[in-house]
Amino acid sequence: IHMSDVSLASLELGPYSHFMQKEIHEQPRALTDTIEALIDDNHFSPALFGKNAAAVFAQVDSILILAAGTSYYAALTAKYWLESIAKLPTNVEIASEYRYRESVPNPRQLIVTISQSGETLDTMEALKHAKALGQHLTLAICNVQESAIPRASELVFYTRAGAEIGVASTKAFTTQLVALFTLAATLAKQRGLLDAEAEQAHLGALRQLAGSVQHALNLEPQIREWANSFANKQHALFLGRGIHYPIALEGALKLKEISYIHAEAYPAGELKHGPLALVDSAMPVVVIAPNDALLEKVKSNMQEVKARGGELFVFADADSHFTESEGVHVIRTPRHVGVLSPILHTIPVQMLAYHAALLKGTDVDKPRNLAKSVTVE
Amino acid sequence: IHMSDVSLASLELGPYSHFMQKEIHEQPRALTDTIEALIDDNHFSPALFGKNAAAVFAQVDSILILAAGTSYYAALTAKYWLESIAKLPTNVEIASEYRYRESVPNPRQLIVTISQSGETLDTMEALKHAKALGQHLTLAICNVQESAIPRASELVFYTRAGAEIGVASTKAFTTQLVALFTLAATLAKQRGLLDAEAEQAHLGALRQLAGSVQHALNLEPQIREWANSFANKQHALFLGRGIHYPIALEGALKLKEISYIHAEAYPAGELKHGPLALVDSAMPVVVIAPNDALLEKVKSNMQEVKARGGELFVFADADSHFTESEGVHVIRTPRHVGVLSPILHTIPVQMLAYHAALLKGTDVDKPRNLAKSVTVE
Repeated sequence: IHMSDVSLASLELGPYSHFMQKEIHEQPRALTDTIEALIDDNHFSPALFGKNAAAVFAQVDSILILAAGTSYYAALTAKYWLESIAKLPTNVEIASEYRYRESVPNPRQLIVTISQSGETLDTMEALKHAKALGQHLTLAICNVQESAIPRASELVFYTRAGAEIGVASTKAFTTQLVALFTLAATLAKQRGLLDAEAEQAHLGALRQLAGSVQHALNLEPQIREWANSFANKQHALFLGRGIHYPIALEGALKLKEISYIHAEAYPAGELKHGPLALVDSAMPVVVIAPNDALLEKVKSNMQEVKARGGELFVFADADSHFTESEGVHVIRTPRHVGVLSPILHTIPVQMLAYHAALLKGTDVDKPRNLAKSVTVE
Repeated sequence: IHMSDVSLASLELGPYSHFMQKEIHEQPRALTDTIEALIDDNHFSPALFGKNAAAVFAQVDSILILAAGTSYYAALTAKYWLESIAKLPTNVEIASEYRYRESVPNPRQLIVTISQSGETLDTMEALKHAKALGQHLTLAICNVQESAIPRASELVFYTRAGAEIGVASTKAFTTQLVALFTLAATLAKQRGLLDAEAEQAHLGALRQLAGSVQHALNLEPQIREWANSFANKQHALFLGRGIHYPIALEGALKLKEISYIHAEAYPAGELKHGPLALVDSAMPVVVIAPNDALLEKVKSNMQEVKARGGELFVFADADSHFTESEGVHVIRTPRHVGVLSPILHTIPVQMLAYHAALLKGTDVDKPRNLAKSVTVE
């Protein structure tokens, strides 16, 4: 029996219209698979990162994460976890920048590379550059087994997102985040900074994560509604603060990539240092903010642009007391997941980008000008 | 005699239409004034930063720069100088982010704050936060004498830009850059990393800088011509790499602030990880790239969007061999100033923003929604 590519694809797609939508909805499964070994063991163990990991981690005094695109935003999120939980000073650098500049090497710094394909050229070259500078403590976080970057690294953590077909990364990103959180907790434990109670609390949160993500996925009808306010716009501004700022960056990138809407992210505190001049009715403002205090500040910054029709679209969490008002729309993610909150808040911004693109009729799985794995400069 | 504010302003403005234009053209003088003491001494001396500076600098093992808005971009530029010249690991953080997150303090890290007014609330609070964490090696780079931030710091370097009236910072930024370059060279010298020949070369480059900036200012007619291609657009993309990436950020911020064109900057290597999807005839791409190799790479990335009318506007330098072609416009800055190149390349992007705003008829000196000194959250 001959089966065309098209019908194979529709078979694989099941009830979904695009691979991106399918991959968004696969996230509970992808997350569960990625942390399965961890959950089974019921403790954070260096062995998750390779046989030699305990010995490598014992030498580490700081961390440098090298990545590109969406993986770079996963790295930015990880900086907050690594500094607050493992107390290790963490730098994050774009691979294509690091490889071409004069930096100050530190042989005790753990070089972490992140790449879905494990073949991203700039990330591979950045890893080689680090090793040439004498940085031999290396860990790769990748989704494709035995790809180039893990083969060139001493330690490796494979995410188990499964094949990702859509060019815009979704499940690879959230599984990278659980890998990075696991790294932070494992380093903290080995450094004597995680007591049994905190360890069990983190494990409990990870166990609940897939269910919480499923609850967030159930918000799709509300988010589809919001997408109507974006599909006819040329601009959007995404704001976050702290550990949610990288999620604002990721939300803006998704919207850019597949809907061609010019979305840009800012840390909320920088709004008044420039981008506020842009805001009017043509530029909806998305706020990722499970934090009432931040929301109140952004709301106060926005007061003066309300007159020009500036509209806020807020993703708040279950604990938030922030309420809707004129020009301020709120969707609450249904559960509070504590320190894993950035993972949960990724789901709605992925769906917002997907539904905006759908309304615009773009080629969601293969956006113009982009390739899935960037293996050229 | 009574003189109205308006006539006072026109008196002060002289031949210029706006304070911003006047301040752009004051940069040769502002830069010369800022480095006058350095040039007179003919060597980089810690005394430029305060009486106790040599003792403070002797303790420093790394640097953390805290700033907001344009000052943050000056800090990003300084990271390249501090790591390559002084070999000190340097982190740069947005003040409003640092003050609210859990970081890993290091008492041997020099905390550098940058603020034109010396009163920026978030930067002041970030400094207090650092001190509360036991970080007592502090240096302020400010333009206003005896303002709050210098008063709270152990060391201080005052830029001598003179009063800056335009909300969009111009001469404050470039004088901050020479202050930061001076810091890098001074630390390098104290650490035995700057021989007499290199020191004289850097001093020579600083001495030439005002003249080179004047040459760049003379490009105004060509840049005014380019502004026609931006004033009728809603978007622009600014690309740079390495030490010129922060100048791309600054160019995009200037255009945002005063012309309300949604300009965004990316490190050139990240183009293919997302923003390339946005590029079409509605989004001109500015490249700040005194580097032929980078230009060739960007040009190759852009090949596929040429068909959709994507246009490149390139600021190259005297040494560049890059030539114009269909859809690729080039302006060459007239002199090569080596390591000070980011300062020189700031001038054309300031003028581009100014002339685009002028064509759009916005309130250049007082853009909507923005204040000169941000003394609120």
